[in-house]
Amino acid sequence: MTSPIDETAQSTLMADIPHDQETKITIERKGQIVLIGINRPYIHNRLDPEATEGLASAYDAYDRDPSLRAAVLFGHGDCFSRGVDVDAFKAFAQSGKKMMDGPGFIDPLGRTKPALTKPLVVAVHGDTWNMAHELFLVADIRVASEDTEFGQDENTHGRFPGGGATVRFPREAGWGNAMRFILTGDHWGAKEALRMGTVQEVAPNRDAALAKAVEIANNIAACGPLGIKTSLASSHMALEDSQTALARLDDQYRALFTTRDFREGRDAQAQQRPPVYEGR
Amino acid sequence: MTSPIDETAQSTLMADIPHDQETKITIERKGQIVLIGINRPYIHNRLDPEATEGLASAYDAYDRDPSLRAAVLFGHGDCFSRGVDVDAFKAFAQSGKKMMDGPGFIDPLGRTKPALTKPLVVAVHGDTWNMAHELFLVADIRVASEDTEFGQDENTHGRFPGGGATVRFPREAGWGNAMRFILTGDHWGAKEALRMGTVQEVAPNRDAALAKAVEIANNIAACGPLGIKTSLASSHMALEDSQTALARLDDQYRALFTTRDFREGRDAQAQQRPPVYEGR
Amino acid sequence: MTSPIDETAQSTLMADIPHDQETKITIERKGQIVLIGINRPYIHNRLDPEATEGLASAYDAYDRDPSLRAAVLFGHGDCFSRGVDVDAFKAFAQSGKKMMDGPGFIDPLGRTKPALTKPLVVAVHGDTWNMAHELFLVADIRVASEDTEFGQDENTHGRFPGGGATVRFPREAGWGNAMRFILTGDHWGAKEALRMGTVQEVAPNRDAALAKAVEIANNIAACGPLGIKTSLASSHMALEDSQTALARLDDQYRALFTTRDFREGRDAQAQQRPPVYEGR
Repeated sequence: MTSPIDETAQSTLMADIPHDQETKITIERKGQIVLIGINRPYIHNRLDPEATEGLASAYDAYDRDPSLRAAVLFGHGDCFSRGVDVDAFKAFAQSGKKMMDGPGFIDPLGRTKPALTKPLVVAVHGDTWNMAHELFLVADIRVASEDTEFGQDENTHGRFPGGGATVRFPREAGWGNAMRFILTGDHWGAKEALRMGTVQEVAPNRDAALAKAVEIANNIAACGPLGIKTSLASSHMALEDSQTALARLDDQYRALFTTRDFREGRDAQAQQRPPVYEGR
Repeated sequence: MTSPIDETAQSTLMADIPHDQETKITIERKGQIVLIGINRPYIHNRLDPEATEGLASAYDAYDRDPSLRAAVLFGHGDCFSRGVDVDAFKAFAQSGKKMMDGPGFIDPLGRTKPALTKPLVVAVHGDTWNMAHELFLVADIRVASEDTEFGQDENTHGRFPGGGATVRFPREAGWGNAMRFILTGDHWGAKEALRMGTVQEVAPNRDAALAKAVEIANNIAACGPLGIKTSLASSHMALEDSQTALARLDDQYRALFTTRDFREGRDAQAQQRPPVYEGR
Repeated sequence: MTSPIDETAQSTLMADIPHDQETKITIERKGQIVLIGINRPYIHNRLDPEATEGLASAYDAYDRDPSLRAAVLFGHGDCFSRGVDVDAFKAFAQSGKKMMDGPGFIDPLGRTKPALTKPLVVAVHGDTWNMAHELFLVADIRVASEDTEFGQDENTHGRFPGGGATVRFPREAGWGNAMRFILTGDHWGAKEALRMGTVQEVAPNRDAALAKAVEIANNIAACGPLGIKTSLASSHMALEDSQTALARLDDQYRALFTTRDFREGRDAQAQQRPPVYEGR
């Protein structure tokens, strides 16, 4: 049984996370959390079909692994990611192959089911453009380095944001704030993102942003995982139908009431010790 | 006929509002507004089933009383409330009794119908945790003292926020802002709440927060009560179905157009005097 | 073929835009954008039925004209508009005539279909009250002069905001922020609007606000118009049903993929020149 807070994870430096040029998506376990890194720094972390599938596969593995309580997404190198690798996607489209075909994948852009049922924290820095901003918007909690440059500028290129920004950007930032950037292609910074609510914390640099995201993930990992899953399920339901979400709360609460972790929460409080949750 | 603004209410001090140890929920009329106080300071205003039903009953009485135009919810003593009185609710659950059974109640957590059809303003100070933060989120307009400490930390206790926060917190603050606190259990302050939009006004202390809430309630009370009800009804409809809400606006406007208060509004403006509305 | 940015439009001064006392709504083309002005300064730009129909007709003409890429709404004179011309609307109601009867109109309050399918930017200054604030909320991107005084105070007059504010104000600013003003009738300023998210940019004066709105409109005009329309269509769909909006993204992207402008976007990038889009 692991301790609820993995202290070593607090001091994670991005450069310390193993990565080699062959691995487009790095996966690094740190106690009860997993760090998922986009690793194509030689091409500004642009995502080709293989990297996108690698993310989809990493999300699926995380979601199925009961020993993992939270995931942190980040980018190796000078930026989080400039978005899609257009040439690679074009070649892939011409090959007639299909992406994320079959089970074992969770769409990292959250367009199709299944979706993540567990929390995703993201730390961004440098260029965070287009598809990368859409991966960022899918995350539940978002930390940005002060040097982040956000962009959703597909319209300047004769395209449109087809990876979920038209749904999640206005929902998170308001119609006017989202349209102000989607319709012009103008870029914006971390402070503007904080003002608009797409970012929850601004950190002074990329390592501080990653450290903050890891700290948040460890705080999540110390919570009861059944409650965390129920919180996410109820909130996702509320996005679609708030009356149904409200009507289900009592049943969801009753289901937790009989679990071992519910008792552990009460026992730990009575005994003035940190709780240790097991997800049952 | 009362004057539209009750000047004496502007100088309400919390300590002046009658309360004794026997009354878990205080109800104090001030002209056309009513002050509803949580009064269990010896247990940090934690709500047991009786206090919760007391709130439900006070909301119902307010909603049915045509002489009341606005309500203000607050907490007596050092804090607004630390939330649920877990031991008392556990004992109640084991007793087999049902809460808010029958008519005469409006669920103060807004999970079930009937809901309030009239405005609720809330003033919070000190600890405002869990179920108390959910009571706060149900209110239409929210004032916080600078010393407020908000928490929605059920997940750290192996539970989950089952009183509406999964619906109302992301809707009001954005997904990322709400998840940042719901999923970690971290607490936050009044300024962060203002940034996120859950609070509309921050006051320097608890009496100033209550005074501001009373001022806002009196401004509401000076408005036409039929228009206020229609505004709330249309906005609540829009949460569920914005197209239907837009389609009904003309009929709702026409219904007001023939009322005595509509004419009074025009007459008062022409005669350059404050209007006196009667709700008909 | 026009250049994507019309430099002359950048220095538009409000006083330079042609307007005479006979024309209640001015329409001025500037390259690929159109400036639509409310022109009843002698009555604080209050909108009578004729001016409202004039707006509806201008929106419809803009939406149908493929040579126009963005529209900017503003008010001539000392303020954007104090809202409805009550006397004129009362007389009109008694005449038995119908407004916006037949085709050729887009409701500028966005209550009924058809709706705008192309972007609307708004620049406001001075008094921006009631129906005028509702016209403002319909716009996709909103710029305010520092001197703007917003009001949604129908309830103080025994009426209610029947022009869409009950739907769009809480959606854009949050429930508490919207109710704080709708239910009290209190007015607010440009900085408060920026905090709440209803405004995207605050400019030092009315001419700077108009210039900023024109700059934003020109940036939109430089984008591919098919992508812009698709972005708006997807975002509007998401307001009603986010799952359907997400499910349609792939088909919407594929439809753009085969257009002339998609290729132009790629060619221009490869050739390091500004793209010239034709909307096909």
